[in-house]
Amino acid sequence: MGMIGGGKGAFIGAVHRKAAAMDGLIELCSGAFSNNAEKSLASGQELGLADSRIYPDFKTMIEKEKQLPEDQRMHFVSIVTPNFAHFEPAMLALENGFHVVIEKPMTFTLDEAKQLSAKVKETGLLLCLTHTYAGYPMVKQARYMVQQGMLGKIRKVYVEYPQGWLSQLSEKEGNQQAAWRTDPSKSGKAGAMGDIGTHAAHLAEYITGQKITRLSADIQTIVPGRQLDDDGAALLRFDGGASGVLIATQVATGEENNLSIRVYGEKGGLSWHQMEPNTLEILWQDKPKEIYRAGQGYLSPVALHNCRTPAGHPEGYIEAFANLYRNFALSLQARLDHQQADPELLEFPDVQDGVRGMAFIDNVIASGKSAEKWTDFTI
Amino acid sequence: MGMIGGGKGAFIGAVHRKAAAMDGLIELCSGAFSNNAEKSLASGQELGLADSRIYPDFKTMIEKEKQLPEDQRMHFVSIVTPNFAHFEPAMLALENGFHVVIEKPMTFTLDEAKQLSAKVKETGLLLCLTHTYAGYPMVKQARYMVQQGMLGKIRKVYVEYPQGWLSQLSEKEGNQQAAWRTDPSKSGKAGAMGDIGTHAAHLAEYITGQKITRLSADIQTIVPGRQLDDDGAALLRFDGGASGVLIATQVATGEENNLSIRVYGEKGGLSWHQMEPNTLEILWQDKPKEIYRAGQGYLSPVALHNCRTPAGHPEGYIEAFANLYRNFALSLQARLDHQQADPELLEFPDVQDGVRGMAFIDNVIASGKSAEKWTDFTI
Amino acid sequence: MGMIGGGKGAFIGAVHRKAAAMDGLIELCSGAFSNNAEKSLASGQELGLADSRIYPDFKTMIEKEKQLPEDQRMHFVSIVTPNFAHFEPAMLALENGFHVVIEKPMTFTLDEAKQLSAKVKETGLLLCLTHTYAGYPMVKQARYMVQQGMLGKIRKVYVEYPQGWLSQLSEKEGNQQAAWRTDPSKSGKAGAMGDIGTHAAHLAEYITGQKITRLSADIQTIVPGRQLDDDGAALLRFDGGASGVLIATQVATGEENNLSIRVYGEKGGLSWHQMEPNTLEILWQDKPKEIYRAGQGYLSPVALHNCRTPAGHPEGYIEAFANLYRNFALSLQARLDHQQADPELLEFPDVQDGVRGMAFIDNVIASGKSAEKWTDFTI
Amino acid sequence: MGMIGGGKGAFIGAVHRKAAAMDGLIELCSGAFSNNAEKSLASGQELGLADSRIYPDFKTMIEKEKQLPEDQRMHFVSIVTPNFAHFEPAMLALENGFHVVIEKPMTFTLDEAKQLSAKVKETGLLLCLTHTYAGYPMVKQARYMVQQGMLGKIRKVYVEYPQGWLSQLSEKEGNQQAAWRTDPSKSGKAGAMGDIGTHAAHLAEYITGQKITRLSADIQTIVPGRQLDDDGAALLRFDGGASGVLIATQVATGEENNLSIRVYGEKGGLSWHQMEPNTLEILWQDKPKEIYRAGQGYLSPVALHNCRTPAGHPEGYIEAFANLYRNFALSLQARLDHQQADPELLEFPDVQDGVRGMAFIDNVIASGKSAEKWTDFTI
Repeated sequence: MGMIGGGKGAFIGAVHRKAAAMDGLIELCSGAFSNNAEKSLASGQELGLADSRIYPDFKTMIEKEKQLPEDQRMHFVSIVTPNFAHFEPAMLALENGFHVVIEKPMTFTLDEAKQLSAKVKETGLLLCLTHTYAGYPMVKQARYMVQQGMLGKIRKVYVEYPQGWLSQLSEKEGNQQAAWRTDPSKSGKAGAMGDIGTHAAHLAEYITGQKITRLSADIQTIVPGRQLDDDGAALLRFDGGASGVLIATQVATGEENNLSIRVYGEKGGLSWHQMEPNTLEILWQDKPKEIYRAGQGYLSPVALHNCRTPAGHPEGYIEAFANLYRNFALSLQARLDHQQADPELLEFPDVQDGVRGMAFIDNVIASGKSAEKWTDFTI
Repeated sequence: MGMIGGGKGAFIGAVHRKAAAMDGLIELCSGAFSNNAEKSLASGQELGLADSRIYPDFKTMIEKEKQLPEDQRMHFVSIVTPNFAHFEPAMLALENGFHVVIEKPMTFTLDEAKQLSAKVKETGLLLCLTHTYAGYPMVKQARYMVQQGMLGKIRKVYVEYPQGWLSQLSEKEGNQQAAWRTDPSKSGKAGAMGDIGTHAAHLAEYITGQKITRLSADIQTIVPGRQLDDDGAALLRFDGGASGVLIATQVATGEENNLSIRVYGEKGGLSWHQMEPNTLEILWQDKPKEIYRAGQGYLSPVALHNCRTPAGHPEGYIEAFANLYRNFALSLQARLDHQQADPELLEFPDVQDGVRGMAFIDNVIASGKSAEKWTDFTI
Repeated sequence: MGMIGGGKGAFIGAVHRKAAAMDGLIELCSGAFSNNAEKSLASGQELGLADSRIYPDFKTMIEKEKQLPEDQRMHFVSIVTPNFAHFEPAMLALENGFHVVIEKPMTFTLDEAKQLSAKVKETGLLLCLTHTYAGYPMVKQARYMVQQGMLGKIRKVYVEYPQGWLSQLSEKEGNQQAAWRTDPSKSGKAGAMGDIGTHAAHLAEYITGQKITRLSADIQTIVPGRQLDDDGAALLRFDGGASGVLIATQVATGEENNLSIRVYGEKGGLSWHQMEPNTLEILWQDKPKEIYRAGQGYLSPVALHNCRTPAGHPEGYIEAFANLYRNFALSLQARLDHQQADPELLEFPDVQDGVRGMAFIDNVIASGKSAEKWTDFTI
Repeated sequence: MGMIGGGKGAFIGAVHRKAAAMDGLIELCSGAFSNNAEKSLASGQELGLADSRIYPDFKTMIEKEKQLPEDQRMHFVSIVTPNFAHFEPAMLALENGFHVVIEKPMTFTLDEAKQLSAKVKETGLLLCLTHTYAGYPMVKQARYMVQQGMLGKIRKVYVEYPQGWLSQLSEKEGNQQAAWRTDPSKSGKAGAMGDIGTHAAHLAEYITGQKITRLSADIQTIVPGRQLDDDGAALLRFDGGASGVLIATQVATGEENNLSIRVYGEKGGLSWHQMEPNTLEILWQDKPKEIYRAGQGYLSPVALHNCRTPAGHPEGYIEAFANLYRNFALSLQARLDHQQADPELLEFPDVQDGVRGMAFIDNVIASGKSAEKWTDFTI
């Protein structure tokens, strides 16, 4: 693995490295950790890389790695830069035959996302989009139970993602993370909706297997002086007949990272909370609620495949992240071994999810500006 | 107290009687429990009333009770009939000098509500609308903390009320409660929005002290064959600058009576769940979340006034109901004693809340039918 | 009902009255609320009793009430005085043909308890001991599921009752409740073990249907200057083969009234917490945990009989208390009607529970003083 | 790092490897994964090790690694074999200058533990005992708050560790883990008390800073046909004046891995649950309970040092494990760099904890067999 971005002090880069390292399947062998060559070098050295594999920028990295013998070069790049700097390295990597792991939202614009999608299709390379929450075993279990029809036809979906970390104008107080996320030149046309709204939308579609078709959004910038949206909600309609509500806000003072989803079908319901991720509640109308737990033998094969510890030994966010990396790595290994990966067991969010995520941003922002109640979700 | 409705087998009538009896302040002395004279008599006898105080209908009750000496007659009526049968007895009671306790939604139409409001104003009599959830001590505490500015200026309000009991077409399977609640000739123009949406809207306005000014609603009838809405959600704007989301659904399979509210201000947030009513969570951005608990000495006077037991001895729904009755009875007693009741301590939902509730129904249903995104909340 | 004790300001007397009033089955008609005649009168008047039915002491009350015509006199007394003043009025009531409701621990000494038991046997009168927690519907459900063998043979019982209200020497700071409870001349030979240890022991035996046969106790007085125990724990063995641990402490700073029990059998386990009383967790080894909830149709008949509201409308401590009164009143009514009460459905803690409670106090205190590890539980 | 034990299919070996890999500080470079040379080789190859660094047994490994140049050889061994096979490799490693990470309980007998302790003292080498639960940041925070006196003088400690996985005779049904843990020739003189009782005892002493001085234990073998204890409880006294109860059972049907601890001091209390490890409850007598959360800026430096993600991004069991490895590795690195490691910040359980753990096993088993109520805790 060669990393692009994620130099000293970056939050998400470190998470990616821990996640990638967890299962002993992936080795960080190279990196362009910053566009500042010195900073890149220092970061790489701190991570124990050979100087020869630390590059001053991603172009050099891709060029030089490609010149290495096949069994020595990196197999894929992991792109953990801010949104505006996703597309270029991803495209270049694909063009040079490298598989890609990439942070969400996938690109800066929907158009870029479509280009990436076309390139993935053209090259047949793998692209993994790190919608972390789709890596949790109990999310897999939820998706499985809906797929199996255990809850009946799905009617209602409530997904919400309240955070509080932008309830003050932190971007003006030296918070670097806040600074780029609230800056349209770095983040794109959406703030909260791009950062966390895309997670919420993906989770809703991922678990229900239904796609958003129409929406009616209220998008706001609550904190004075901020440029991008920091708050929003949308009424939703799905292609399978479900309807629901999506909430994403970064001004819910005191909230940490409280992504939650509830889904109700004709026969039963489910409830999952990211902050207590090893528990999945299943509700029935005429019998007791059931508490499904990670690591238990009664789970579906796909959920168990994504567990590492026995029940009661909690797994968390880094493990969910690591599941994306592990499934990606096993799929890649299968390909290198000329074997067929099990697409269900080794499933991970891909370039199509990335295109939908960028389309979600466009559609939800447009709806927020529209006087029409309902607007169609278009790509 | 004379009761109108609430004959044998009625759910809410029994709750009213238990709530009224709890504190030894109110005596059930008369009743017209049904428009069927025999059924009324049987119900009254079962409740231990003297035959002379059991009436075949509310008109007779009001007429006869008025003829009793002042110290023997009922002081007020409690109206626990279905929605369509609220207005007439309430108006007659007021016209004859009786105070009124009345179930919500207050009337069948907004116009009736306005007439009642005018009559209350004209007569100066007391009217208590049983928005039960406003009787919980931790709801009082939440309201108090917002009033005191402890959370700062309020920005976001999320109120939701999922139930699952109408996820099947129960009205066709002999469920009496379901039958009248889904029948527009009994319930009025709204189903779920009238039954539980009004509770959610009241709670949001009650705690925040802000009034809904604009809304954008998605109102649906999910279960085929049903006449009224059984599901809905609305984006909200408030007069104090807050915005939010209201969810009310009766098709959330497996949900019991899961009314919840979260409110976020510039300084902090709060979270309250009806199904665990003795706990109020207060969230802060830079210090630990606090768990306020009913019965604790650190609560506000108004919250403590509405507690009956020490902390850790849970109070519930009937006690919340009893708080409305107790505050109403103590206010009435003060009036009979020519004393001034403390309006804050003895506060209970009144006819103005009833008018707003009926207006909420009109507005939310209208918005649900509108192609405009936002409609103004009008009365 | 005639009340003995429970004058102005007394906590538990007021709870008894609310509980007795809740279902409209019991009327407070007389009382000797204090041994101070003036205070008794004032308390009775405040409660709306006729002066003629307010007595200066319990002896006068029992004597005078007996002289009233049978259909006018009280049917039973409710004794809510401190422990030392339980036996005399209870015995006198029984001797004069009045049924008895009495607070726990039943008497001041085990010998008194045995005398009461003999008198109840002799007279055939009803005696209800207010082990409140046995009145909760989910405790009934737990007992039912154990009885039905659903958890298999019971192996382990963990019952604990931490409170924090005596973590300081409150009895010296004007706390009246603390004053008598920590005074051996008022409370008896035990403090925490008498006040809450008896509840814990009763709950363990009540749910499991097994009786404590041996125990090994560590009994302490933690707060300097206190006379009675304020803390204790005991290792337990039961006659049905189970073993367990009982914890009762009043110095667990910050704890409210956190009675909890967990029971494990060969097939499954259960967990119940008084502070969230409407939920009963059922644990299985190879399938998801189940959450049983008060008011749900799938509960046992005895649990449902002890519910008043639909699921999701929480009931609490006063309702649990009211269940004891209601079952007692219905049993009494059946007797007055020369009918057979259903002993399972209308079950309430009785004089035998009172004898065991007093024996528990003797045994646990003796074990606490013993250098032997195990001592037999003797009566 | 060279690993001893942890071949294919072993649970805890894999956890150690994931934990060691997480922070990029430790590289698995060699291993003797099994005493079966073939199995060791296969395991090592699967892990991507060079054949030259995979050894047929730990003696060979230690001998051969020692012969490598200092900058190429392993720095420490990680011993993840069953209990009976801890001492020999640990001693040999120390004698040959290798630092040691070792599973708990540290040895097969107390005497072995003392020998290891003496050898560590003699050599000055580092030994890390993997009491995983001491690696959780909120356990560190709990310990810190007690140390700072925030809860006042500690009075009560309740620690419990219920599991259900041995509620059947699984050792006879092909469960390998169950087989060795219930076999005295592999596990030592204790079953549940060695496996999980030692964790509970360590946690109690770790958080309170007090040492157990006396105990009274009830030790049982509940499941017929089993050789070692599968259940136990002990009354405890501590050297700082606290008292408490320890529960450890593996027959609590349906329980996963429910280690919990509650500690109460004169001023406040705390409660921590391993299955929801990122939350620490702090209880106060006269103000609201506080919820401390992992990743929050208000935590102590030592707690924050042991967090990897921002609040609301849950960390779990593997991260706690990784904290032991990271603190060990950073301490080792400091030593290699001739620097002083911060002993508080980089603290990890050591050989003294191992000696106390083995003494706990001896003492608790002896007390279980004793007819004396209290026995002194001796080493």
